[in-house]
Amino acid sequence: MDRKRRYQALFDNINQYNSGEKGITRIAYTNEEQTCTSAFMRMCKAENLDIRMDHCGNVIARRNGKIEGLPPVVMGSHLDTVYQGGKYDGVVGVTAALEVIKRLNEKRIETDHPIEIISFACEESSRFGISTVGSKIMSGLFQKEKYRSLKDKDGITMEKAFSLCALDYNSIDQASRGNEELKAFFELHIEQGPVLINNNKKIGIVTGIAAPVRLHIQISGKASHSGTTPMNMRKDAFLGASEIALALEKAAKLEQEYGTVATLGVIDILNGAMNVVPGEVEVKIDIRSTSVASRQRVLDHLYQTIYSVQETRQLEIVSTEIISEVPVLLSDEISHVLESICEEKGISNQRMISGAGHDAMNMNKLCPVGLIFVPSVDGLSHHPNEYTDLDDIIMGIDILEEAVLRYAFAR
Amino acid sequence: MDRKRRYQALFDNINQYNSGEKGITRIAYTNEEQTCTSAFMRMCKAENLDIRMDHCGNVIARRNGKIEGLPPVVMGSHLDTVYQGGKYDGVVGVTAALEVIKRLNEKRIETDHPIEIISFACEESSRFGISTVGSKIMSGLFQKEKYRSLKDKDGITMEKAFSLCALDYNSIDQASRGNEELKAFFELHIEQGPVLINNNKKIGIVTGIAAPVRLHIQISGKASHSGTTPMNMRKDAFLGASEIALALEKAAKLEQEYGTVATLGVIDILNGAMNVVPGEVEVKIDIRSTSVASRQRVLDHLYQTIYSVQETRQLEIVSTEIISEVPVLLSDEISHVLESICEEKGISNQRMISGAGHDAMNMNKLCPVGLIFVPSVDGLSHHPNEYTDLDDIIMGIDILEEAVLRYAFAR
Repeated sequence: MDRKRRYQALFDNINQYNSGEKGITRIAYTNEEQTCTSAFMRMCKAENLDIRMDHCGNVIARRNGKIEGLPPVVMGSHLDTVYQGGKYDGVVGVTAALEVIKRLNEKRIETDHPIEIISFACEESSRFGISTVGSKIMSGLFQKEKYRSLKDKDGITMEKAFSLCALDYNSIDQASRGNEELKAFFELHIEQGPVLINNNKKIGIVTGIAAPVRLHIQISGKASHSGTTPMNMRKDAFLGASEIALALEKAAKLEQEYGTVATLGVIDILNGAMNVVPGEVEVKIDIRSTSVASRQRVLDHLYQTIYSVQETRQLEIVSTEIISEVPVLLSDEISHVLESICEEKGISNQRMISGAGHDAMNMNKLCPVGLIFVPSVDGLSHHPNEYTDLDDIIMGIDILEEAVLRYAFAR
Repeated sequence: MDRKRRYQALFDNINQYNSGEKGITRIAYTNEEQTCTSAFMRMCKAENLDIRMDHCGNVIARRNGKIEGLPPVVMGSHLDTVYQGGKYDGVVGVTAALEVIKRLNEKRIETDHPIEIISFACEESSRFGISTVGSKIMSGLFQKEKYRSLKDKDGITMEKAFSLCALDYNSIDQASRGNEELKAFFELHIEQGPVLINNNKKIGIVTGIAAPVRLHIQISGKASHSGTTPMNMRKDAFLGASEIALALEKAAKLEQEYGTVATLGVIDILNGAMNVVPGEVEVKIDIRSTSVASRQRVLDHLYQTIYSVQETRQLEIVSTEIISEVPVLLSDEISHVLESICEEKGISNQRMISGAGHDAMNMNKLCPVGLIFVPSVDGLSHHPNEYTDLDDIIMGIDILEEAVLRYAFAR
């Protein structure tokens, strides 16, 4: 009971750091997020952890083990959010990790292996269109030169955003842990979908993570006067975008059995005005699946549509793949361990796929990974009304604690 | 020849005032536009005209007549532009009027009636979504309270924009000339369409002006995670907007014989991001025709589509008519006069409809109106490449001068 209140206080403390009026807005590498990160470091310090921030802004808090030289068991997630997001996404994993440490300290449990918490930098793609930046850099999956000049919506490059946080983009390679042995990585996260709620299960054990292909599409027609340009003499770039969006939806619906999804989430009519036929439009598209083949079929359909819209509407369309990630399969051994912990505790659980990317998928490059889901009410995510019951989070923390302990002793 | 060079210098002088890199951007009630207007006032002063700016920013430059108390013959157009517009739209009419005055001064012609130039404020709707503000106010067609808090894209209200130009929105009624007799109003303007060029005519004599219905449509679905929300559980507001846009195009194409056109020129996904299914979208739509019945059929079709999209996609859609103007028929007498002037000068001409709104349509409320078109190469308008041959403009000025003289003498 006391633990529950303690956890709630920690959770609420983190969510004070918010620049939005509706929901939580704590965008990566902004004042709110950096202040939140600093506060989290102080909280870790208070639990006697060794704290450092690496060269890309990941916070690493370490509880030493009894035996010198053993690799750490790691828990982590992220503290940044989307615009007008919820309180749970990322925060649950980071605060749960700290709660596990508090429990170990309380019980004076000394482990053989060190235990680490990582709060990863810039997990959300809201700012630069690229997600899990901190864990990508840590695991060597980051394309430094390609992403250097990605801009946010105010025109600030990633390099500049780093420097505003006193981080040197040029030295981010030093945040790589590719040469270091890690024992295992665990992430507790809200499901962000409706599966657990619908199936009335408390714990999701993730076996694989869907990966996105993301595209930037530029559609050029001809800007002209909306009153004097007859309908049959227009080259309306927005109508081209509309056809592409609807075709994309149709293609993804055909792949529903693979859990494939496709979204046009960003559109901009350049110099759009009520009295001007749209001449130039930019859109951004996100397609995800755990099946590369299914995702490719949606992409193929998209390219076919682009080709035919170019012809029928006399538009010029240029599409660029910003990112194309490979779906990830997680450790089968850890899945078994998590399952057996749930069975022992009598907690309902199921194996499942994650439709969203997580830092866990990059950490999978460095060590065996376990990703644990707790239920999202209404399946809501990236939304002010995102909600997970406190009791469900506590249940997740119990599983996380037990899993870490199973890996934190030699033999 | 000398006149031609003189006119070109005047035209170029006005187009110096530009805040854009591509084409001309001289948005109403901004620094560029106000500076341009001041410069124009000095140019009029140099021709010994009496200058005043009325309470909404219209510039009125007057050349007195010989006979006391006769109503003025008025010429005018506007100096503001759309974003990245051309050099000709509006500017041709204002500079042509000043060139006519220069010619009369040069020839020392004294007219019985006074002659006025009006440079109307805020003709383009680019800033506040409402067009011909200055001539609406002058002719009593402006809905002061309704438009007071219309905002531009930076959130500045119309009232605030006025005050930044030292104009008092509360006193704009004083710019009305409803109680004053005006003899006639003439506007020279580029066609902004392809008709004259295609028909190989030099002068268009406008008999009627199509009028817009403009709508603001708010589409509300549910913002959710683009990775974890299955396709069949989405409420994607952008896809609703896409269907509406394509249905609108289809409806307008069915009305092509009436010259009816419809455009979705502005769209905004609220808090749009690549990894969020669009939850809320705002669009602006413009539908124009000289036939009220045809325009209404397009509107009816639009509302039917909105209704069905609401049902099939489970969206909430609220549409608001921002403006609904009535098509205007111009003075048949003046059309005849303009025709006979063209015939006498041997200039090819045709009667035609204007698909775009003009200050002339509001001035029609105050006095008989003549609207004269010169050819637009490629039919291009509201575009950096907008172009009208200098010789064609000079021909237009010749017609304008002659028309003003026919009305500027008593009897």
